[in-house]
Amino acid sequence: MQSQNPVFIPGPTNIPETVRKACDMPTLDHRSPAFARLFRPAVAGVRRVLKMTEGEVIILPSTGTGGWEAAITNTLSPGDTVLAARFGMFSHRWIDLCQRHGLRVQIIETPWGQGAPLDKIEAALKADTSGTIKAVLATHNETATGVRSDIAGLRRAMDAAGHTAMLFVDGVSSIGSMPFEMAAWGVDIAVAGSQKGFMLPAGLAILGVSPKALAAMDTATLPRTFFDFRDMLKSYAAGGFPYTPPVGLIAGLARAIEMLEDEGLDAVYARHHRLAEGVRRAVAAWGMKPCAVTPDLYSDTVTAVLVPEGCNGTDLVTLAAQKYGVAFGVGLGEVAGRVFRIGHLGMLTDVMVLSGLATAEMCMADLGWPITLGSGVAAAQEYYRGSAVAMAMAAE
Amino acid sequence: MQSQNPVFIPGPTNIPETVRKACDMPTLDHRSPAFARLFRPAVAGVRRVLKMTEGEVIILPSTGTGGWEAAITNTLSPGDTVLAARFGMFSHRWIDLCQRHGLRVQIIETPWGQGAPLDKIEAALKADTSGTIKAVLATHNETATGVRSDIAGLRRAMDAAGHTAMLFVDGVSSIGSMPFEMAAWGVDIAVAGSQKGFMLPAGLAILGVSPKALAAMDTATLPRTFFDFRDMLKSYAAGGFPYTPPVGLIAGLARAIEMLEDEGLDAVYARHHRLAEGVRRAVAAWGMKPCAVTPDLYSDTVTAVLVPEGCNGTDLVTLAAQKYGVAFGVGLGEVAGRVFRIGHLGMLTDVMVLSGLATAEMCMADLGWPITLGSGVAAAQEYYRGSAVAMAMAAE
Amino acid sequence: MQSQNPVFIPGPTNIPETVRKACDMPTLDHRSPAFARLFRPAVAGVRRVLKMTEGEVIILPSTGTGGWEAAITNTLSPGDTVLAARFGMFSHRWIDLCQRHGLRVQIIETPWGQGAPLDKIEAALKADTSGTIKAVLATHNETATGVRSDIAGLRRAMDAAGHTAMLFVDGVSSIGSMPFEMAAWGVDIAVAGSQKGFMLPAGLAILGVSPKALAAMDTATLPRTFFDFRDMLKSYAAGGFPYTPPVGLIAGLARAIEMLEDEGLDAVYARHHRLAEGVRRAVAAWGMKPCAVTPDLYSDTVTAVLVPEGCNGTDLVTLAAQKYGVAFGVGLGEVAGRVFRIGHLGMLTDVMVLSGLATAEMCMADLGWPITLGSGVAAAQEYYRGSAVAMAMAAE
Amino acid sequence: MQSQNPVFIPGPTNIPETVRKACDMPTLDHRSPAFARLFRPAVAGVRRVLKMTEGEVIILPSTGTGGWEAAITNTLSPGDTVLAARFGMFSHRWIDLCQRHGLRVQIIETPWGQGAPLDKIEAALKADTSGTIKAVLATHNETATGVRSDIAGLRRAMDAAGHTAMLFVDGVSSIGSMPFEMAAWGVDIAVAGSQKGFMLPAGLAILGVSPKALAAMDTATLPRTFFDFRDMLKSYAAGGFPYTPPVGLIAGLARAIEMLEDEGLDAVYARHHRLAEGVRRAVAAWGMKPCAVTPDLYSDTVTAVLVPEGCNGTDLVTLAAQKYGVAFGVGLGEVAGRVFRIGHLGMLTDVMVLSGLATAEMCMADLGWPITLGSGVAAAQEYYRGSAVAMAMAAE
Repeated sequence: MQSQNPVFIPGPTNIPETVRKACDMPTLDHRSPAFARLFRPAVAGVRRVLKMTEGEVIILPSTGTGGWEAAITNTLSPGDTVLAARFGMFSHRWIDLCQRHGLRVQIIETPWGQGAPLDKIEAALKADTSGTIKAVLATHNETATGVRSDIAGLRRAMDAAGHTAMLFVDGVSSIGSMPFEMAAWGVDIAVAGSQKGFMLPAGLAILGVSPKALAAMDTATLPRTFFDFRDMLKSYAAGGFPYTPPVGLIAGLARAIEMLEDEGLDAVYARHHRLAEGVRRAVAAWGMKPCAVTPDLYSDTVTAVLVPEGCNGTDLVTLAAQKYGVAFGVGLGEVAGRVFRIGHLGMLTDVMVLSGLATAEMCMADLGWPITLGSGVAAAQEYYRGSAVAMAMAAE
Repeated sequence: MQSQNPVFIPGPTNIPETVRKACDMPTLDHRSPAFARLFRPAVAGVRRVLKMTEGEVIILPSTGTGGWEAAITNTLSPGDTVLAARFGMFSHRWIDLCQRHGLRVQIIETPWGQGAPLDKIEAALKADTSGTIKAVLATHNETATGVRSDIAGLRRAMDAAGHTAMLFVDGVSSIGSMPFEMAAWGVDIAVAGSQKGFMLPAGLAILGVSPKALAAMDTATLPRTFFDFRDMLKSYAAGGFPYTPPVGLIAGLARAIEMLEDEGLDAVYARHHRLAEGVRRAVAAWGMKPCAVTPDLYSDTVTAVLVPEGCNGTDLVTLAAQKYGVAFGVGLGEVAGRVFRIGHLGMLTDVMVLSGLATAEMCMADLGWPITLGSGVAAAQEYYRGSAVAMAMAAE
Repeated sequence: MQSQNPVFIPGPTNIPETVRKACDMPTLDHRSPAFARLFRPAVAGVRRVLKMTEGEVIILPSTGTGGWEAAITNTLSPGDTVLAARFGMFSHRWIDLCQRHGLRVQIIETPWGQGAPLDKIEAALKADTSGTIKAVLATHNETATGVRSDIAGLRRAMDAAGHTAMLFVDGVSSIGSMPFEMAAWGVDIAVAGSQKGFMLPAGLAILGVSPKALAAMDTATLPRTFFDFRDMLKSYAAGGFPYTPPVGLIAGLARAIEMLEDEGLDAVYARHHRLAEGVRRAVAAWGMKPCAVTPDLYSDTVTAVLVPEGCNGTDLVTLAAQKYGVAFGVGLGEVAGRVFRIGHLGMLTDVMVLSGLATAEMCMADLGWPITLGSGVAAAQEYYRGSAVAMAMAAE
Repeated sequence: MQSQNPVFIPGPTNIPETVRKACDMPTLDHRSPAFARLFRPAVAGVRRVLKMTEGEVIILPSTGTGGWEAAITNTLSPGDTVLAARFGMFSHRWIDLCQRHGLRVQIIETPWGQGAPLDKIEAALKADTSGTIKAVLATHNETATGVRSDIAGLRRAMDAAGHTAMLFVDGVSSIGSMPFEMAAWGVDIAVAGSQKGFMLPAGLAILGVSPKALAAMDTATLPRTFFDFRDMLKSYAAGGFPYTPPVGLIAGLARAIEMLEDEGLDAVYARHHRLAEGVRRAVAAWGMKPCAVTPDLYSDTVTAVLVPEGCNGTDLVTLAAQKYGVAFGVGLGEVAGRVFRIGHLGMLTDVMVLSGLATAEMCMADLGWPITLGSGVAAAQEYYRGSAVAMAMAAE
């Protein structure tokens, strides 16, 4: 039987009906003014979601990985040094990408489950009296561990160090779902993807670029053409694109942002927080803990659940897919087997999340894990019904 | 926020992705051979689902109500007598329709929550020595009360009475979801709709008509044109339709039947039984009862849940829609307020049903009903995970 | 090879992208307020398209044929007399329907290719001094011959006769494409279908009903339930529907009317006139004539082209479908073989029409008809490019 | 008015209904086995379309430009020399890309309208006795001029020179529409895009890579991560993708190839040839010429039409879009204004092409160009109807 069970992977997320319809469009001549009419609102919308006050939005037919690559190839040169903390699979991959492009990466190894170590970053920057560090890389939401780092704090640490490095932030699994303040946080490049908070299929890297990062384009010598911001900005100015753009995804992006803004960005963030908190209540009721070590680190888009001793999180993910047709995320890298991940971002409701929790419980029981069926569901129900009432009252 | 919560009304049901795509087609010339290539598999598929061995399938751009009307106008004449039991809103409505068309309806009033009273029907038929009763009307699955009547038993009762009346069965909310045996049960007209077990949007009445009922067309004098079987059959024979057919729904019907048969009709029925049984376990865990008075009457497509004294089922339905974006069915007619209804038919999974049960529980708690959150969910989880395992093992 | 050639049948018409998407919706609880929010704009829109100032709109899950049946069963009683002219297949069918419902039809036989004979109708009404004629039936646009009758003139004729019969108009292939004035013309029931000017799939009969016709409901004794206006109006008033409505088609209807009104109804009518006139120029360039005998009768939605002596229009239709994948309409009834029909209504552009004309020419050449390739196309091109310029200038 | 006029740009092409539906899918967990079930047929299909006998298929969430970049960054190192002829905008852009990535490009300047100069290439290779040329770049179909180069001949020239350079071919606007023989022609990397012959939206670069090119990965030092073949192949082998793949496009690719193979690749190529030849007949009837200087160079996917002295091709493109809602391609680079381009590739029929020709004629007349309306249409009609008959006869 086909099913329409929601997915609980931390992206791609469930695609809203209306966004699917916006993406699914007949061929449009991308060299005609019709393309500009469609592209401009998408760009303007991204600017509002990122809370940009200056700089430029860049949209690439690519993914978050391509966005990372574009961020460095447009601003840096071979041999340049960047500073990055490694505390999960996605912070690791960005570091790896930098190394493969000939950058020197000053790595601050950090236990998985923790976030960006602001004090160590500050210290490293203070120590860099010669200004060799050109950019600090930060993973806003580490999807592997469900950890949100404090980017505002990172900016304060950089300022405290008096360092002029650029700040590049991977917001792939946070932007559109959790508060993001490009201008207020002094972010130089923010990288998002279409398939998370923007609720679209994969296929777009979405970047915000500050004037400082734009200025770096002129001296950067890492080679790039497909990802070249200069070609992009020149074409955008004329209402075009330097090569054939993925028109449907761009139309869908505009529509998705319209949806986010109809709900209200703050309401979207509050909803994600509620959904996440319900999941965390369920996790506690199961007698388990998130991988994120302290509450201030809890992600509102994904929870990596540490499984009991002797249990294997990957077994749950496999069973859920095979027996119940429900997709969760496995643990990656260092936490492979030790966690399973519940994605709770994008177009999702209390009701949908409850079905995910109920499924996880059935799998746990099937696998002989110590669990009381309905326990996590009940904890989440109690939280959801209470907080939903509060939201309704607040709306009056 | 838009949601993609499933619906739990007893039809229209959640439409599968692939069926939606089959329905959503560009314009096709219905006078071309392409239409016949699309129509014939739909007709043949209906024949298999109804378990017909003879007679004809009729597909009308209409609904179940139109199907009822077509059944009587094509076979009966003003003043004819039909026999019917009334034990719910839908059995009532068919009776009302007959009366409005000038038929005399011999009504066996039956308490709501019970099914077709085989003994009384047999007695009535035996008493009709002059053969005035031309047809017996039966509602296979009374959607208002969640009661399934025993049509095989009804046939036996008719045979025991030695009566030659035709047997017309409303299978709108059973066909495609629960076993139906047109030939074996000696059904003369079976009426289905597109929007229940066939998982389509509303818009088609689907009928199986026995040779005996077809023969009655010649003498029936109730007026009809739009619904006239004679025009239909004449056109069908030529690969056409007597007027503009709803081509997309017909394409969708063929696709839906393909889905049912890919799963296997018996597997489809077993799945509905499992889904229903899980719901009933939850109802019991809540300390409540189905409206259907005995287990042999339990419907596998809809459960009407009797609410506790002092509670109003309609409140739950309203709250679920407004606060959680989930649709249940209200009580209708005699049981208005006394029940709420959970539809569990069509393209539905364990996981989806659990989200409905969890929602109902939240509403009950919100309304101050005596309920332990998670209790019904846990009962259903236990049943689902156990029976799902059993199904998997049986498949090896 | 699949193709996306447009269809040139006189309905169903090519469905606009946006209308298809509006129709293709997930299941919505038709008993919830969400249904009313969707239904009311559709009803209000129909009222504007029909130019109604009073009375009610009725929307039935049916087709034009069902609309005809609903018109008479809701207002008339067995044995009642109606007056109708027969001059094509569709006027014939409505007459046949009346007869099958036990009405007496006073028929004015009229040559195919002509329209409603106003003088004869006036004379018949004048002769009916006893007022036995309860309704006059008129086919606004006879789809079989491409003839538009003068409904305003018919109203004047009825008034001149001083007769109080109701006026029922079949506007199935005119409404939404050619001017229609329900109030100004004193129409008592107007019947439209979803699949012509409304550009939807088949599946809805759409009726405007005057207060006079509504009053007739109370005395009408023709049986009806599925089509009963009384049930409809009672349910509509509560934001509902008497049975399961085809929600997607209703959503699509609202969207289609929005499209028509975005373009402007007058602009829609002007576009249809231009498209039709281009087709007629092509027909003249081919040395052929429309079936409609005089220009005042020319339909703007369909042209029935009289084929040269010794040629068979059906051959062209068959060849076009088989060799070029293009659908035209065959001649029906009296003009079978003598015409082929080009539908030019709905979502259609100059460019699409030209492809139809070019195809017809290729078929004619293939069949050995006397034709110069490109001749009709050139005539239509000349007209389209000239009138398109004029339209653009007028818009400034 | 919305329109559903076909587009006549040389890509993106009109997307078939069934391909759109395949692309428009709900979220699927790309780390589940379901992804592999979807990905493998797409990869296998590409292999068949490219006529590969060995090597690997690489699919990147990108465009043709990204495909070019991937081709060189995976096989070459900074300072390496490549040989390329420049005879149009797309051959120019690939050269530019190489230069921006630090390659030395030995350019053979060739007049626009001509194809790859086999003799000069052979001479250049012969002169390169030290083997500095690592790769020869060839644009199979130069979209700017409508010129098809002889890749089989290029291979013969390379062999005649006894040179071991790799052969990289841009087949973006040829593959899937014109014969392509990766194995027989000894192509080392073939680059295609989703939005041309594969009839999909833009968003995929599709590459075939020979064992020789795969071997070059190990020594190539141009930086790459997003485009790294090594990561791709490692992930593919495990049924996965190195980052989030565009699942819908991949599903659509498999479906598109199914369509091509249902028609038969040879039939697809023959259809494109017929469509192109009809366009060329029209061009001749207009008294104009293709930009491609000799018939052996004529592209079957796009015709760049040289406009009469004193006329500007861009005016026609602008007018067609604004007045008739039809998209043609403008002239680019050296031939800006001197040509307009008619794309005739992808899902297109005779009938659709005729509408494009008719539109072009109207525009020419509107612009005062010397043209007889209907002349080009007639020439194409004559050819289409004749060759269509021949095809049907051949099929018997």
